[in-house]
Amino acid sequence: MRKVMIVMGSDSDLDVMNKAKEVLEEFGVEYELRILSAHRTPKQLMEAVSNLEKNGFEIVIAGAGAAAHLPGVIAALTVLPVIGVPVKSDFNDGLDSLLSIVQMPNGIPVATVGVNRSKNAALLAIQMLSLKYEDLKEKLLEYRKNMEASVIEKDKKLRGK
Amino acid sequence: MRKVMIVMGSDSDLDVMNKAKEVLEEFGVEYELRILSAHRTPKQLMEAVSNLEKNGFEIVIAGAGAAAHLPGVIAALTVLPVIGVPVKSDFNDGLDSLLSIVQMPNGIPVATVGVNRSKNAALLAIQMLSLKYEDLKEKLLEYRKNMEASVIEKDKKLRGK
Amino acid sequence: MRKVMIVMGSDSDLDVMNKAKEVLEEFGVEYELRILSAHRTPKQLMEAVSNLEKNGFEIVIAGAGAAAHLPGVIAALTVLPVIGVPVKSDFNDGLDSLLSIVQMPNGIPVATVGVNRSKNAALLAIQMLSLKYEDLKEKLLEYRKNMEASVIEKDKKLRGK
Amino acid sequence: MRKVMIVMGSDSDLDVMNKAKEVLEEFGVEYELRILSAHRTPKQLMEAVSNLEKNGFEIVIAGAGAAAHLPGVIAALTVLPVIGVPVKSDFNDGLDSLLSIVQMPNGIPVATVGVNRSKNAALLAIQMLSLKYEDLKEKLLEYRKNMEASVIEKDKKLRGK
Amino acid sequence: MRKVMIVMGSDSDLDVMNKAKEVLEEFGVEYELRILSAHRTPKQLMEAVSNLEKNGFEIVIAGAGAAAHLPGVIAALTVLPVIGVPVKSDFNDGLDSLLSIVQMPNGIPVATVGVNRSKNAALLAIQMLSLKYEDLKEKLLEYRKNMEASVIEKDKKLRGK
Amino acid sequence: MRKVMIVMGSDSDLDVMNKAKEVLEEFGVEYELRILSAHRTPKQLMEAVSNLEKNGFEIVIAGAGAAAHLPGVIAALTVLPVIGVPVKSDFNDGLDSLLSIVQMPNGIPVATVGVNRSKNAALLAIQMLSLKYEDLKEKLLEYRKNMEASVIEKDKKLRGK
Amino acid sequence: MRKVMIVMGSDSDLDVMNKAKEVLEEFGVEYELRILSAHRTPKQLMEAVSNLEKNGFEIVIAGAGAAAHLPGVIAALTVLPVIGVPVKSDFNDGLDSLLSIVQMPNGIPVATVGVNRSKNAALLAIQMLSLKYEDLKEKLLEYRKNMEASVIEKDKKLRGK
Amino acid sequence: MRKVMIVMGSDSDLDVMNKAKEVLEEFGVEYELRILSAHRTPKQLMEAVSNLEKNGFEIVIAGAGAAAHLPGVIAALTVLPVIGVPVKSDFNDGLDSLLSIVQMPNGIPVATVGVNRSKNAALLAIQMLSLKYEDLKEKLLEYRKNMEASVIEKDKKLRGK
Repeated sequence: MRKVMIVMGSDSDLDVMNKAKEVLEEFGVEYELRILSAHRTPKQLMEAVSNLEKNGFEIVIAGAGAAAHLPGVIAALTVLPVIGVPVKSDFNDGLDSLLSIVQMPNGIPVATVGVNRSKNAALLAIQMLSLKYEDLKEKLLEYRKNMEASVIEKDKKLRGK
Repeated sequence: MRKVMIVMGSDSDLDVMNKAKEVLEEFGVEYELRILSAHRTPKQLMEAVSNLEKNGFEIVIAGAGAAAHLPGVIAALTVLPVIGVPVKSDFNDGLDSLLSIVQMPNGIPVATVGVNRSKNAALLAIQMLSLKYEDLKEKLLEYRKNMEASVIEKDKKLRGK
Repeated sequence: MRKVMIVMGSDSDLDVMNKAKEVLEEFGVEYELRILSAHRTPKQLMEAVSNLEKNGFEIVIAGAGAAAHLPGVIAALTVLPVIGVPVKSDFNDGLDSLLSIVQMPNGIPVATVGVNRSKNAALLAIQMLSLKYEDLKEKLLEYRKNMEASVIEKDKKLRGK
Repeated sequence: MRKVMIVMGSDSDLDVMNKAKEVLEEFGVEYELRILSAHRTPKQLMEAVSNLEKNGFEIVIAGAGAAAHLPGVIAALTVLPVIGVPVKSDFNDGLDSLLSIVQMPNGIPVATVGVNRSKNAALLAIQMLSLKYEDLKEKLLEYRKNMEASVIEKDKKLRGK
Repeated sequence: MRKVMIVMGSDSDLDVMNKAKEVLEEFGVEYELRILSAHRTPKQLMEAVSNLEKNGFEIVIAGAGAAAHLPGVIAALTVLPVIGVPVKSDFNDGLDSLLSIVQMPNGIPVATVGVNRSKNAALLAIQMLSLKYEDLKEKLLEYRKNMEASVIEKDKKLRGK
Repeated sequence: MRKVMIVMGSDSDLDVMNKAKEVLEEFGVEYELRILSAHRTPKQLMEAVSNLEKNGFEIVIAGAGAAAHLPGVIAALTVLPVIGVPVKSDFNDGLDSLLSIVQMPNGIPVATVGVNRSKNAALLAIQMLSLKYEDLKEKLLEYRKNMEASVIEKDKKLRGK
Repeated sequence: MRKVMIVMGSDSDLDVMNKAKEVLEEFGVEYELRILSAHRTPKQLMEAVSNLEKNGFEIVIAGAGAAAHLPGVIAALTVLPVIGVPVKSDFNDGLDSLLSIVQMPNGIPVATVGVNRSKNAALLAIQMLSLKYEDLKEKLLEYRKNMEASVIEKDKKLRGK
Repeated sequence: MRKVMIVMGSDSDLDVMNKAKEVLEEFGVEYELRILSAHRTPKQLMEAVSNLEKNGFEIVIAGAGAAAHLPGVIAALTVLPVIGVPVKSDFNDGLDSLLSIVQMPNGIPVATVGVNRSKNAALLAIQMLSLKYEDLKEKLLEYRKNMEASVIEKDKKLRGK
């Protein structure tokens, strides 16, 4: 039905990308989790991307670090929205990852979120899907309300109320 | 039907944001162009955002420079997808704009594109809309084909063929 | 009488912001400590800010990290002086926090202190208040004298005198 | 009555700092404009700062570029609030100026505004003064209203209304 | 015989990459100049790269700017040495280009030269080829001698000798 | 026959550079490991470099950190290809090392790999040597196949297949 | 006779600055170690600097972190050579310290060494003094020889010789 | 008698380095101006440096841009004080030049001044020489007095006095 492909360039990105998975599960959105490298398995990547729509995927979340080409390379091969997650690298907290992902040339956009913010990538995917699936919008509004309530709770506690 | 709100924080961002407008026009997607500042007209901004869905908008493209709060502030007030365009500022080519937009906290994502890449923001909006509107997907594929053809043409010319 | 609002965007900022609290206590300046998020509780934030003067507040200290919009959003809603504390984030020691706070557009200033320097934020608030409350100026001069004495003491000890 | 000292480290900063002057004039706040260098005229600087209060000054606005020590050195010599304006230098658009001013050690704060934002420095000074001088608060609210109106006007024009 | 492929991602990189061409011509090394985009013509790129060896190419020089994926994507598809030229972009003089090219993951290296240093890319290609083609080593030594002589000449002139 | 010189500026770089050694061993390429400092043993360095070809070396891999002059100084003294490894320093994860190595002036290139990527330096050396030694090309293709297989394995495991 | 003043802005800089002390001791150069803050003890600093020559000092080594004004403020008050040591801060490994020290305006130089390189500051002081004191030049040459020998020894050991 | 060697890596640095020359002339200090490249004329450089003392030089001022190895390479070959001038490059206003010069390893210091601050390099050289040549100290004090007077003059003019 509504399905999101979560791709990462290396299994070292798994801890970060699992947070996207958890959000999708929470919202009842199907997903598949893949390790596909733009550099080490370019053919497998290409094949997977070319079958995205046939396999029912509507959005791709791609996480990668350092010279992070994965999201851009995927975006070049599909017109499905691609959300890029810059994974924190060993160089200036992922400045390389961030710039490699966000600074895409005109014509091939990648929807970039903050460094390691795979949770936000999932929420963004759900916001996109909610344009089409009304129930997701309801869940999003509820999710926001809970977030709001949690901050209000902490604020009250701090104020001793 | 399908309508995109293009917001900018200042009229000095107009040249940059007009490129988003042109792409939307090319794809036959309705839009409205607004100047609404998170800092100078917070009330007008809030009102506009709270009426987005009622007025038929499905996506917001927000461009801002320097301490660029506009996209994030809008994202906090709607669950519609918000696409952020970091506008080139006077400080390190918009490093401030980029970080102010992309580094959103967990819970409230902004889909960020490259500095001044409002064209990509529009294309990303259309990719999102094409999940729902089949004809846009066709146009996107055609757009890509034209882009490809233009590069091939230049390549041929360079090779003297 | 003289009262400072200390706001932070998340309870993870509490350790940093508590240092502002301690300085205000030391100077006998009333304060309230709040968690109010520009992104997760925008309505609560707005309400709190619109009641600042009615509730006797004269200055706001606002701390936030990453895409740190909180100080700027507050500054847009009040003409009370707003002091911004960039809280150290996971990205380049808070470069994102610093730029998101200090690079405000013309018209809406935020008085920014160094990364994590909430202690300085409190002292700055007291310096502002001392324009009006003479006794605070006395205390500031004494505070400086103590600081000076402490450095002199360490210098003496180092020189073996 | 209410008087602001505007200091700059070099006459090359004059164009930037004049914008602070203009805002103070607009609000009817007295000021004096000085060139005093922490490095080239340290004695003159010290003398001027030690006489600030005697001469009726309540706030200092200090602008400097590159290794911009002026605001911090002044802040070390007075408990009046010191507002620092990082002036754009030849190195990364004033990254050196910004860090030299904002990263003050605990104990001696400088209220820092954005690079070249001397206009905001003046507005911040007025916000501080308005804690004491009621009429300035009125003017500030009016200033904001005009700013708001100007943005609304531009927004209307853009929308063809 | 010995042939170098010079690829660029966009015709806007032509001025920069022509300097590589000129050096290769000077050394009598055959080359082909191509515009092939990792994002806009991925299929053409892949085809060209898969035919490199069949067509007698021994080295690839690839120049690209911003999110510069071209050199890395080529390097993933061939074991011929790939030399990457970060082309100066609109963001911090090509910091994005540099990091996108040099920070390749383990397994797939790109031999990176300085920003816009396509001349050095060509010289590096010739140094590599000279491992195999003795005459190129001779020419390199002569090239260096001329460079040396030119600096010595300028030094003499400056010293008035 | 085919021999690579691995040079480092200090024994503190040994852990990083040993990874280059291991790759060369895996590919059956001879190497020598040296500590030679551009600053502390300039004469020894010069002597070693001037004897490179006589001693059968075909490529140099040079690793250094901070003001990392070693690769560039070697490149100035030989026309053999020099591969530079920026070693992570105490300053911004080796930004100083990277820029000191990659930003060589026109005429004297250094083939730069990512920070601490000595493994890639060795692979790059082997790619260069494989222009001349056919068997190395075979091994490189096998190495890539193994790398590919390892990623595919991890991908399968993740998908529970 | 020949005496160096080592000043630091805070006792938290002591570990770093002690390395300068040890080098001076090794070379038999007299020194005094002081804690004097440009911000917390400006008067004590000024007094100490104005008495430098009277007390036989010939060179000042000044270390400070963050908004590191100490070396520049001292340099403004004496024509003795001032060597600045940027002490590693909590912000980007002392980028603030480095820029605050090295980017001095024309007229008032500070001889800056690398971040935390107080050892080099001491060696630089000795190099300056050796212009006047012949015996120090001898010791410097010996120091270099030992350094060279130590690297040669490590190189030999690594080569198994 | 007292002589300073001014070296630059390329004739493109001449405009910047001429400012050092002018200051030395103003102070009556002999100098020689040389173009010597660490990369293009390493032998000439070495020869010149090894003859420095024999030819009566007491200090070296070395300016270079980008991967600026010149000052460090000279410092490795002499115990005379070496003053490094980072020349503004095409990359981030000379960030590469600055880091390549200032971040020297322990043992071989370079006295670094601000980007393009060759004027300060000359003043620093004179401050060093004035340890030995009393008359230079007098001239330095006068130079400072003139600088002070010039700022005071501008201050007076600005104040309309």
